[in-house]
Amino acid sequence: MSVAADSHARYVVGVDYGTLSGRALVVRVSDGAEVGTAVHPYRHAVMDTVLAADGKALPPDWALQDPDDYRDVLRHAVPAAVAAAGIDPAQVVGIATDFTACTVLPTLADGTPLCELDELRTRPHAYVKLWKHHAAQSHADRINATAAQRGEPWLARYGGKISSEWQFAKGLQLLEEDPEVYHRADRWIEAADWIVWQLCGAETRNVCTAGYKGIRQDGQYPSADYLAALNPDFTGFTEKIDGPLRELGARAGSLTAQAAAWTGLPEGIAVAVGNVDAHVTAAAAQAIEPGRLVAIMGTSTCHVVNGEKLAEVPGMCGVVEGGISAGAWGYEAGQSGVGDIFGWFVDHAAPAGYDSHEVLSELAAAQPVGAHGLVALDWLNGNRSLLVNHELSGLIVGLTLATRPHEIYRALLESTAYGTRMIMEAFAEAGVPVTELVIAGGLAANTLLMQIYADVTDRPLSLIGSAQGPALGSAIHAAVAAGDYPDVATASAAMGRVERAVFLPDPERARAYDALYAEYRALHDHFGRGGDDMMLRLRAIRNAARGEQA
Amino acid sequence: MSVAADSHARYVVGVDYGTLSGRALVVRVSDGAEVGTAVHPYRHAVMDTVLAADGKALPPDWALQDPDDYRDVLRHAVPAAVAAAGIDPAQVVGIATDFTACTVLPTLADGTPLCELDELRTRPHAYVKLWKHHAAQSHADRINATAAQRGEPWLARYGGKISSEWQFAKGLQLLEEDPEVYHRADRWIEAADWIVWQLCGAETRNVCTAGYKGIRQDGQYPSADYLAALNPDFTGFTEKIDGPLRELGARAGSLTAQAAAWTGLPEGIAVAVGNVDAHVTAAAAQAIEPGRLVAIMGTSTCHVVNGEKLAEVPGMCGVVEGGISAGAWGYEAGQSGVGDIFGWFVDHAAPAGYDSHEVLSELAAAQPVGAHGLVALDWLNGNRSLLVNHELSGLIVGLTLATRPHEIYRALLESTAYGTRMIMEAFAEAGVPVTELVIAGGLAANTLLMQIYADVTDRPLSLIGSAQGPALGSAIHAAVAAGDYPDVATASAAMGRVERAVFLPDPERARAYDALYAEYRALHDHFGRGGDDMMLRLRAIRNAARGEQA
Repeated sequence: MSVAADSHARYVVGVDYGTLSGRALVVRVSDGAEVGTAVHPYRHAVMDTVLAADGKALPPDWALQDPDDYRDVLRHAVPAAVAAAGIDPAQVVGIATDFTACTVLPTLADGTPLCELDELRTRPHAYVKLWKHHAAQSHADRINATAAQRGEPWLARYGGKISSEWQFAKGLQLLEEDPEVYHRADRWIEAADWIVWQLCGAETRNVCTAGYKGIRQDGQYPSADYLAALNPDFTGFTEKIDGPLRELGARAGSLTAQAAAWTGLPEGIAVAVGNVDAHVTAAAAQAIEPGRLVAIMGTSTCHVVNGEKLAEVPGMCGVVEGGISAGAWGYEAGQSGVGDIFGWFVDHAAPAGYDSHEVLSELAAAQPVGAHGLVALDWLNGNRSLLVNHELSGLIVGLTLATRPHEIYRALLESTAYGTRMIMEAFAEAGVPVTELVIAGGLAANTLLMQIYADVTDRPLSLIGSAQGPALGSAIHAAVAAGDYPDVATASAAMGRVERAVFLPDPERARAYDALYAEYRALHDHFGRGGDDMMLRLRAIRNAARGEQA
Repeated sequence: MSVAADSHARYVVGVDYGTLSGRALVVRVSDGAEVGTAVHPYRHAVMDTVLAADGKALPPDWALQDPDDYRDVLRHAVPAAVAAAGIDPAQVVGIATDFTACTVLPTLADGTPLCELDELRTRPHAYVKLWKHHAAQSHADRINATAAQRGEPWLARYGGKISSEWQFAKGLQLLEEDPEVYHRADRWIEAADWIVWQLCGAETRNVCTAGYKGIRQDGQYPSADYLAALNPDFTGFTEKIDGPLRELGARAGSLTAQAAAWTGLPEGIAVAVGNVDAHVTAAAAQAIEPGRLVAIMGTSTCHVVNGEKLAEVPGMCGVVEGGISAGAWGYEAGQSGVGDIFGWFVDHAAPAGYDSHEVLSELAAAQPVGAHGLVALDWLNGNRSLLVNHELSGLIVGLTLATRPHEIYRALLESTAYGTRMIMEAFAEAGVPVTELVIAGGLAANTLLMQIYADVTDRPLSLIGSAQGPALGSAIHAAVAAGDYPDVATASAAMGRVERAVFLPDPERARAYDALYAEYRALHDHFGRGGDDMMLRLRAIRNAARGEQA
C-alpha cells in the first residue's frame, strides 16, 4: 500500500467474497485510499466432486461451499488487512461485504446453516449452492415454460429467461430432491445476506440479489398460484426468501460482540447490507451515473449499467430498481466466457512456442484489422446475453492452410469485443443509452484486448483505478452505512477511482471493425436466433454419444 | 521387390511423373507383379520464386519446371529400375508414362521446348507451367464469364467452370504477357504428351488431357468466334493444341534410338500415348468398370469414375468420353485440401504433446461418433468440387471450453469424408451411380481415416493393392500398347490389384454419421451456395488488409 496510515483518519473495511477466497481491504473514508489488504482462501474451496463431510461423490454439475469458510475470512483476512494497514482498529467505522451470486443456502430461523446441524452434515442439499452449481437446469426450464405459458409479467424483466443459477431454480431442486431438508429450511438466503446476518445479528435482504436472483419486481415475488403450478409444495417458497428489505448502502445493523471478536474491529460499528461483486464495482469505478456501463472482465464478463427509466431489454440478465444504486434502474448483462476462452486457446489449441498470452498477443498486435480473414463466435461457454442459452457453442470461420495461431487468438479476443458491442447496442435500442464503457477486472491489464474493445465499440475506454474493484466498492458502501456520506453516489465520487479515455478508438480501425462486426452479427443471428439450431443439435448429439459411452 | 525375376517373362515399364520427381516401375506383363522401381528427383524441382537460368524473381503464384528434368528421369530412373528388377532389358516390351496435369509447355514444331532456345532461356513464359501455376486466375475468370455469356455448350461438361490451371487459361496468360513467346510457340502441349513425343519421336495427343484440360468435347475445341471474343490474337490458339488424337492405351509409336540410349531399353518397343496420374490409377485399382469411384487421397483428393452415359454433374471437374478408358464417359472431381488440412492442424493448431498424427489419431479413435459435438467444413484450401471456389474457407462449429485437440482433429478428418460423400451423392443424383469406393494414395494407410470414410459413406472401402498406383497404371497401359492385352479393361483385370471391403461400415456409426452429415450439408449450402457469402467477403477483407500492410 502506498499511503501511510493517518492516526486521525477514519477507515472502513470492504470484504469481497469470491469463488475461492475472500479479500479484506482497508480504505480511508476521506479519499478512498487503499491502505491494507489480505486474502484468505476457503478451506473447502468448491466442493464439486465429493462432499468433504463424508467423502461421498456429488452428482455432475454440482458446486457446493461450506459457510464456515466465509466466517474464516472474517477471522483471518480482516485482522490481517488491518494489521497490514498499520492503523488502530478503533479507527474503523464500518464494514461492508460483497459476494458472488446467486450463492444461496438453507438455514434455521436464527440463521444457522442446516449443514451445521449434526444430523444434516452429510446431506449435500444442506450446504451452500455456489453460483456455478448447474444441476437445476431442468427446474429452470420448467420455471420458464410455466411463466411463459401463464404470461407472468416479471419474465420480461429478465430478458425472457430465469437462470438455473438463481434462487427459484435451486430452491425447486432442493424441494424435489430432498424435501426433508427443504422443509427444515426456515430461510433460503443469499450468502450475500447471510454473512451480513453473521456480522450484525439481524436478518436483512438487499434489493440487488432480491431483484436479480430472487425475482422480486414492483415490490412482489411470483404469486402463490404460479408457484403451485410448478409444484404444490413450492407454494410457500417465497416465505423462505422474504425478509426485511434494505437498499444498497443502508445500515443493516451494528457489529456484534461475536463478530467484533472475529474481526478485531470495534463492536457496534456500522454493518452495511449485502451486495454483489459485480454490482458493487460500479461505485468503485465512479460509474453510478446512468449510461456508464461497467464491464467486469475476468474468466467471464459481467456488465452493469444504471438507467433512468425502466426498459425491457431482450436477453439481458435483469433489471432491478435500485439494483446497482438507489434511485436508478440497474441493468445487468453478461458474457459466459471471456478470459476462459483465451485460456482455453493457450492451453489446448496453441502449438509449442506459441502457447503463452504474451507471444500470441505480440504477434497478433502486429497485424492490421481483418488481415487474418477470421470471425469467431464467443460462445465456447454458452451465451448469457442476449441469447441466454448455455447450449450454444463456439465457431470459427475463415480458416485457411495459411492461418496461424496468433490469428485465431486475435479472432477470439475480437469475438468477445463483438459480444460486448451486441449487448451495448441491445441496451441502446431498448432505450438504455450507454455513454461510456468502463473496464474493471483482471483483463483490463491486457492492452491489445483493451485497444480492440475501444476500436470495436468505437468509443474511448475508461479503466477502473483500483485492482480491488469489488472490495473498494464494498468499502464505499461501508462509508455510507457509517453515515460518513449521504449516499453511494457521493461516496463513489469521493472514494472511487477511474482513469478516463485510457484507450482511444482509431477511426480507420473502427471502420474496418464495422465490416467484421457485421459478419459476427450475421453468424450470431443465424446460429443463435433460429436461422439454424445446429449448435443445439450438435450438443444433443454430443451428450447422447457421451451418455452411451458412459 | 518380392517377386524373383523370370528370364522368360515379358515386362513393361511404367513411369509416373510427379510434382518433384519421376518414378519408374518394372512390371511383369502376365500378372502385374512389380519387380523393380527407382525414383529420380527433378534437378530444378519447382521454380516458384526464381528462374534458375538467370536467378531473377518470378511473380507471385507462378510455378515452372524445366523439361529436361523429365528426360533425366528416363536417363536415370528407368535404367535403375530395370537394374533393381534384375531382368534383362531385352525382356521389356513396352513403356508408358503418366503425368501431373495440366502441366503444359510451348515448343517448336519439332517438339523442342522454347526454353531450350538460347535466346529464350531467360524468358519465364518459355518454360513448363506446372499444374499449380496459379497466376492465370484473371484469364480463367474471363474465359468463364465469356463462355457463360455466350452460352458455350461445353461449359456444363466442366461443372460450369474452367480452371485457371488448364490449357486455355495458361495459354491466354502467355499470349497477353509475352506475345513474342506465344507466337514462337508452334505447339502448346501437355507435358504428358511431350514426354511421349520424346520417347517415340512423333507427336500425339491423349484424349484424357485433351478433354479435361483442353476443352475438347464432341470432337471439337471451342470455336474461333469464342476465342476471338477473349482476344482477337487468341483465335488461332486451338491450332497449337490440336494434334493426332489417340485413345488411352493406344500405341503412340516405337521407342527411338535416342530414347533407347537414354533408357537402356530396346529400340522399337511400344510407347503408349500419354496419361494423367489420377486417371491412370483407375486401371491399377481394377476400377475401370462403371460405378467404381477411385479416390486418390494425398495432400488433396482426386476422384475418378467411369459412367455408361453422359451426364452433366454440377460442380464436377469434367466429363470426357474415353477420359479414363475407351468406351466409357470418364468423370473427375476433387477436394482441394485433405492431407494438407490434417498436416496444417498438426503443425499449427496442436499443442505440445499432441502434435503428431499418431497421438491425435489414437485419442480420436477412442471416441464414439459425435462425442466431440463438432462439425467442420473442409475448405481450408478452397473447394474444387462441387462449389468450384478457391475463395471459400474452413469453419469449425461446436467448440466449447471442454473441446480437446484430438476432437478437432477428428472433426477435420470427418469433414473430408463428408466432402467425398457430397461428391458421390452429386454424381448419383446426376445419374452417375457410384457402386464402390476404392481408395488409392498415401492416406489409405491411415486406418482411422479409412474407417471414418467407410462409416460416413456407409459402404465397404476397397483399397488399391499397390503403393505405386500411377506407375502400375502406366505399366498396364504399356502392356496394352505392346499388344499383350486387347484393351485396358482386360489388362487391368490381369495386372491391377485391389483388396475389396477392407473397411466395413458399422451400421450404428453410419446412422450416427447421417445426423452429422446433415449438419455438414447445412453448413455447405449456407456458406457455399449463396445462403451467406461471408467467406468471400472475409477473403476480400483479408486481402485488402494485407495489401494495405504491404
